[in-house]
Amino acid sequence: MKYVFMLVLSVMSFGFQQPQKTRVIFFGDSITQMGVEKGGYISLIDSLSRAEGQQEKFEWIGAGIGGNKVYDLYLRLQKDVLSKKPDVVVIYVGVNDVWHKSSFGTGTDPDKFEKFYQAMLEQIKAAGAKIIMCTPAVIGEKTDFSNPQDGDLNAYSNIIRQIAKTNQLPLIDLRKSFLDYNLRHNKENKDRGILTYDRVHLNAQGNLLVAQQLWNQLKSIK
Amino acid sequence: MKYVFMLVLSVMSFGFQQPQKTRVIFFGDSITQMGVEKGGYISLIDSLSRAEGQQEKFEWIGAGIGGNKVYDLYLRLQKDVLSKKPDVVVIYVGVNDVWHKSSFGTGTDPDKFEKFYQAMLEQIKAAGAKIIMCTPAVIGEKTDFSNPQDGDLNAYSNIIRQIAKTNQLPLIDLRKSFLDYNLRHNKENKDRGILTYDRVHLNAQGNLLVAQQLWNQLKSIK
Amino acid sequence: MKYVFMLVLSVMSFGFQQPQKTRVIFFGDSITQMGVEKGGYISLIDSLSRAEGQQEKFEWIGAGIGGNKVYDLYLRLQKDVLSKKPDVVVIYVGVNDVWHKSSFGTGTDPDKFEKFYQAMLEQIKAAGAKIIMCTPAVIGEKTDFSNPQDGDLNAYSNIIRQIAKTNQLPLIDLRKSFLDYNLRHNKENKDRGILTYDRVHLNAQGNLLVAQQLWNQLKSIK
Amino acid sequence: MKYVFMLVLSVMSFGFQQPQKTRVIFFGDSITQMGVEKGGYISLIDSLSRAEGQQEKFEWIGAGIGGNKVYDLYLRLQKDVLSKKPDVVVIYVGVNDVWHKSSFGTGTDPDKFEKFYQAMLEQIKAAGAKIIMCTPAVIGEKTDFSNPQDGDLNAYSNIIRQIAKTNQLPLIDLRKSFLDYNLRHNKENKDRGILTYDRVHLNAQGNLLVAQQLWNQLKSIK
Repeated sequence: MKYVFMLVLSVMSFGFQQPQKTRVIFFGDSITQMGVEKGGYISLIDSLSRAEGQQEKFEWIGAGIGGNKVYDLYLRLQKDVLSKKPDVVVIYVGVNDVWHKSSFGTGTDPDKFEKFYQAMLEQIKAAGAKIIMCTPAVIGEKTDFSNPQDGDLNAYSNIIRQIAKTNQLPLIDLRKSFLDYNLRHNKENKDRGILTYDRVHLNAQGNLLVAQQLWNQLKSIK
Repeated sequence: MKYVFMLVLSVMSFGFQQPQKTRVIFFGDSITQMGVEKGGYISLIDSLSRAEGQQEKFEWIGAGIGGNKVYDLYLRLQKDVLSKKPDVVVIYVGVNDVWHKSSFGTGTDPDKFEKFYQAMLEQIKAAGAKIIMCTPAVIGEKTDFSNPQDGDLNAYSNIIRQIAKTNQLPLIDLRKSFLDYNLRHNKENKDRGILTYDRVHLNAQGNLLVAQQLWNQLKSIK
Repeated sequence: MKYVFMLVLSVMSFGFQQPQKTRVIFFGDSITQMGVEKGGYISLIDSLSRAEGQQEKFEWIGAGIGGNKVYDLYLRLQKDVLSKKPDVVVIYVGVNDVWHKSSFGTGTDPDKFEKFYQAMLEQIKAAGAKIIMCTPAVIGEKTDFSNPQDGDLNAYSNIIRQIAKTNQLPLIDLRKSFLDYNLRHNKENKDRGILTYDRVHLNAQGNLLVAQQLWNQLKSIK
Repeated sequence: MKYVFMLVLSVMSFGFQQPQKTRVIFFGDSITQMGVEKGGYISLIDSLSRAEGQQEKFEWIGAGIGGNKVYDLYLRLQKDVLSKKPDVVVIYVGVNDVWHKSSFGTGTDPDKFEKFYQAMLEQIKAAGAKIIMCTPAVIGEKTDFSNPQDGDLNAYSNIIRQIAKTNQLPLIDLRKSFLDYNLRHNKENKDRGILTYDRVHLNAQGNLLVAQQLWNQLKSIK
């Protein structure tokens, strides 16, 4: 179906100059995998772009796989991202690097997290694509930093912030946005139900928050 | 040597009415094990009591063993504490219940932490001793909650606070005191060197802070 | 329904001398929790006893709770076992003590496994009940010891064998029986499908194997 | 000192045709890091080559770093190995991929272990070097597979054996050799002291066993 659409576009382009769409690939874990579903954050970004009459300017591609850590992204970067010649790559990773420490014993060392992240950036830059980075939002929505993985999530978010700074890349600080939102709307200090339905994966409100933050950044790109 | 001293006391007590000393047992992990050393927090409590001329009123006994979790305390409660007929038991535990999750895979489930803690309290109460509870101070002194175990330490401290409330027991909230102190004195967000020398075990300043907090509570007993 | 039956029994016992049934409580984790279901190992033991005309001699009670480790059993021993005045307690535990190391970070230290197991035995003995011990069968059915938890399962089974020996208690060595069975019937070195359906929980053949081993021991009691 | 020696070699090579030495790089973790020490397995390989009058044929380079897992090797492959233009690369890794699961929560997923290993092989092959693979020997020397990590070590050794087979590369199966040796010499089922001094790192006998196995393979190269 996608290919038919692209064929039609190709045929049309004989008749007049088709403006080049900005191809954006969202690269991440299960949160991004679900992002392309109805109501998912990538679907909502598409809706937001249409509401502002900018749907012709962008092409959205989801490249999320459940359970992915930073080195999973690294290992499939060429095949799932660079081979598709994106103009922009949105990287949204970190939850499983922390979470898998306690659930499988196979989380990611902080220094290795940084090394693989940086190695990915080098390859994406070399391919000429722009990059938008995100911090991992939450594993638990309690606001008093008593979600079990809060310490590590804050530490890995600090690493991501530092990488963004060093590489002078735009950062969507979802960790901060989610905390700010919960401080306003989660007065009962609940661990889920505000922006997620299960402490990690986004509910409608969570998808909207991520979509808005990303769309604001994306629409300003060129 | 202790026994000689007690023998002397016994002999002396024939001559006049010796006031009964309040026997305080400090029950915990390596932090408490080191507390009886020179400069340790228990030694400092003894010094503080002497400075206020109250050394005759108290007897201090350290019962800390490195690596202990709440159920280690539970398993040796009778032998190491109750058999010594304490008047007061200071319980200072929780660091290893959290830490051993990542270092050995044998941390303590939160609900089991609560159950064993409560079971200990029942036995100590039944033996007629008073109880003072403490929250675990720190595994890392960073103030932005980016020490890897911060989430869990906050969660287990919340459990301890709730147990203290339910049982109407005095709580020395070291977790809070250490954070407050670090917010004032650890402007560089270092993970050690302010109140600990290795992220966990107390340096001179840390021992003094714990000693002061506990002494303030202890001297008001009876 | 159980109470109605017991009421009927009580009424009947006015008329003639009812022989005392041997009350057997199966104490364990999810494997035992499922044991009382249709086709479960406890249900099969009941069937085996009926096939041999011994149903009047025994009363079977399941006391399994999913996720239980040795200290979960310890904590609910009085309430779920001793208060019911069993004649025999079958203890079948160990899988979660090993498994939770990697899946939650809250497995059981080997020395604590032994201490809580021994503490349970003391209380059951003091209550006058007989005890049958079991080793944990499998987490994965591969026969070349390449199931990830094989090392620990063997180590904890060794601890249980030693406890049984020291306490001179009968041991149903399921770990050994399952391996023997798999060596004969699992030539493809599969990790499930021979005696379990999911590497841990018993399929029909697994339930039958456990039932037969336990019934052989149980029917010789008294 | 090494550089002086190489300078001398260079000067000498003006006078007559210096035979090209086979440059062997040992790539691994702390076991290999210690291999270059006096009595270490790499030093012993050098001794064995001298005893057989073959010292002129080989140049030995240690490239072991403590704590390294397969993706640590991958990340430093170019800098520490390929840039030195080796003729042969001996890869000896796997202990930390398993061990760090329980000691840090950051072990390596089996599928990722395979992917990074294979990715390394591709790069080394592309550089034209020969490869010798090793299985990880032991974490504990007990022979009844009751060392806690035995299951995983067997599983990861199976992965390495499969990779060697698929890539048609020579394999030094240290896991098997160590078990065979312990079955003959460790009748008391001790966890250390036969081929290691601490369950993992090689004692004199362990270094000799590894050296002999590797030398037998190395001297047959070319």
